[in-house]
Amino acid sequence: PRRYRITLLPGDGIGPEVVSVAKDVLSVAGALEGIEFSYSELLMGGAAIDTVGVPLPEETLAKAKESDAVLLGAIGGYKWDGNAKPLKPETGLLQLRAGLGVFANLRPASVLPQLVDSSTLKKEVAEGVDLMVIRELTGGIYFGEPRGFGTNDAGVDIGFNTEVYSALEIDRIARVAFEVARKRRCKLCSVDKANVLEASMLWRKRVNEISSEFPDVQLSHMYVDNAAMQLIRDPRQFDTMVTNNIFGDILSDEASMLTGSIGMLPSASVSGSGPGLFEPIHGSAPDIAGQDKANPLATVLSVAMLLRYGLGEENAARRIEDAVIETLNKGFRTGDIHSSGMVLVGCKRMGEEVLKS
Amino acid sequence: PRRYRITLLPGDGIGPEVVSVAKDVLSVAGALEGIEFSYSELLMGGAAIDTVGVPLPEETLAKAKESDAVLLGAIGGYKWDGNAKPLKPETGLLQLRAGLGVFANLRPASVLPQLVDSSTLKKEVAEGVDLMVIRELTGGIYFGEPRGFGTNDAGVDIGFNTEVYSALEIDRIARVAFEVARKRRCKLCSVDKANVLEASMLWRKRVNEISSEFPDVQLSHMYVDNAAMQLIRDPRQFDTMVTNNIFGDILSDEASMLTGSIGMLPSASVSGSGPGLFEPIHGSAPDIAGQDKANPLATVLSVAMLLRYGLGEENAARRIEDAVIETLNKGFRTGDIHSSGMVLVGCKRMGEEVLKS
Ligand SMILES: CC(C)[C@H](C(=O)O)[C@@H](O)C(=O)O
Ligand SMILES: CC(C)[C@H](C(=O)O)[C@@H](O)C(=O)O
Repeated sequence: PRRYRITLLPGDGIGPEVVSVAKDVLSVAGALEGIEFSYSELLMGGAAIDTVGVPLPEETLAKAKESDAVLLGAIGGYKWDGNAKPLKPETGLLQLRAGLGVFANLRPASVLPQLVDSSTLKKEVAEGVDLMVIRELTGGIYFGEPRGFGTNDAGVDIGFNTEVYSALEIDRIARVAFEVARKRRCKLCSVDKANVLEASMLWRKRVNEISSEFPDVQLSHMYVDNAAMQLIRDPRQFDTMVTNNIFGDILSDEASMLTGSIGMLPSASVSGSGPGLFEPIHGSAPDIAGQDKANPLATVLSVAMLLRYGLGEENAARRIEDAVIETLNKGFRTGDIHSSGMVLVGCKRMGEEVLKS
Repeated sequence: PRRYRITLLPGDGIGPEVVSVAKDVLSVAGALEGIEFSYSELLMGGAAIDTVGVPLPEETLAKAKESDAVLLGAIGGYKWDGNAKPLKPETGLLQLRAGLGVFANLRPASVLPQLVDSSTLKKEVAEGVDLMVIRELTGGIYFGEPRGFGTNDAGVDIGFNTEVYSALEIDRIARVAFEVARKRRCKLCSVDKANVLEASMLWRKRVNEISSEFPDVQLSHMYVDNAAMQLIRDPRQFDTMVTNNIFGDILSDEASMLTGSIGMLPSASVSGSGPGLFEPIHGSAPDIAGQDKANPLATVLSVAMLLRYGLGEENAARRIEDAVIETLNKGFRTGDIHSSGMVLVGCKRMGEEVLKS
């Protein structure tokens, strides 16, 4: 059988519950396709801060790098909110992204027919939405230097950050985006603020350049303010979108919320060479942690992305996605997506139903 | 009578049509309140590029500064899209904002009961939405230095910008926001990315500091990605929001689109001392320019903001807002907000109906 080593980072809050369900689904789907997995569970986030004093222990990063793919649950919680930056769970996440070099974040947002009523958008606007936001994840203002605090010429305190992109960083994320668009509906919309920012002007120029390698993909450009509007006005106009780290942070979350069911949405972060990082887009939800109420499907679908984008195991990925759809068709719903007439189940039971499907 | 000098900058596309209507409304509402206006019409945007070769002629800025308030129509169009940055209409707008020092941009987004169906949000989510986004307009990444192009250590091309805020810049926009919130429902949500950006950490710290001057206003903080989601999930949770220039660009447009009727939305940009800048949020719509199809109500409502926030003439402002509501109640609609059973009218006729109301 094909063998892969998976790093599990359950993290905080509902993280352990949803990772446990997703791991079982991964093992079973793999077995059916002749794949065997070995797992190492490691510390990350608040759990790591409490145990070893840092959000991303060296051992965690080292082991993650040696593995074939990383599955993360969720990190953070009220408990660590007041911590200084180096001791925040989020800092560990940024270090993990940088450490793995996962520069391309793939964020699908689809409105499933079974859940179209969860959206706050009118049914006729929401139905059929199926888009993918590709966010640059290891560059831009998140990591740009110089950054910090100081004083200006007048002696007044300032805080500053640098938005910076190199042609290489843009080229590689653009290529990922064109490749993904090619496997979808061959439409790519690049989002920037090239009417104001130099970093965006270079972005647009390079994306145009790279587009010549992908003549079959139809490229358009949109300013970020307009994109924020168009996502609400008519989200079906979009297929694949590509944008920088901070605009991607905002727009991918906006796009997610169009579906109304963020407990269903997975993500993949890949580097093109080493192991990818796969995680649900939802947070650690400390208020419902340990109560078996969490929706594990975002993590289960993250495992499908892990198979597809991390290991190239398309058949096993499809198997999981089909099982999730079937489970929804049977009427099973966790609290976050429950509606009348449906069967309310907890996190574990939802996992069992996926396994049966 | 009280006398004010108004600078009119009709600009491009539908700008002249909507400004002409709004000017008449301003004159009439003023007369009824014992106010007299004198107008100077000046060049700005593409119209200025074509006539004198720059998007913001020196004369325009100088005259605008001497006046009591500035009314802008819209700028830009396909014709100038390919221009180099110094010759873009948008550059003129940024120069005008900086030149007037209008650091506080007030962007209301309300769903009027008459137009609730225009929203792509479900009626039960959209109805009653009434929020105000206050965007810092003359700082941050739009104006931060250093900026430009260069090469990195590896000799690769880079484009870069600086996000920078001083404590003074934050304090003054925070005070405007608290003052505005105080006149509304006394709830202010400050939006930042303080879990990642140093500029946002200072922002949050200063906003907290300033809040002690406004104990009657309830302050909360939200990360920008979450704010982009919450606007869609439950926009009624917001009253007044305050944020930086780039986040405000994105979120104010997102908030506008929640109403579904951006042809109705005004804006005010004020400095606290000199003349303010008032403009509809919509663009120049070159495709319908000169056809008497444009909705003038956003500009008419901008004139109401001009009276309220620019001149302190609350009664005249109310008069105009009431007349707009009455005109809508009578069933008059331009094409952008038309629905069955309503009376379809053009730009001029809409203006006449407002004057009658
Ligand atoms: C937690 C935070 C640093 C992170 C980000 O901004 O990237 C999160 O919002 C995300 O999108 O994964
Ligand atoms: C035209 C552009 C420079 C401008 C901005 O980004 O500020 C516009 O989008 C706006 O919001 O007024």
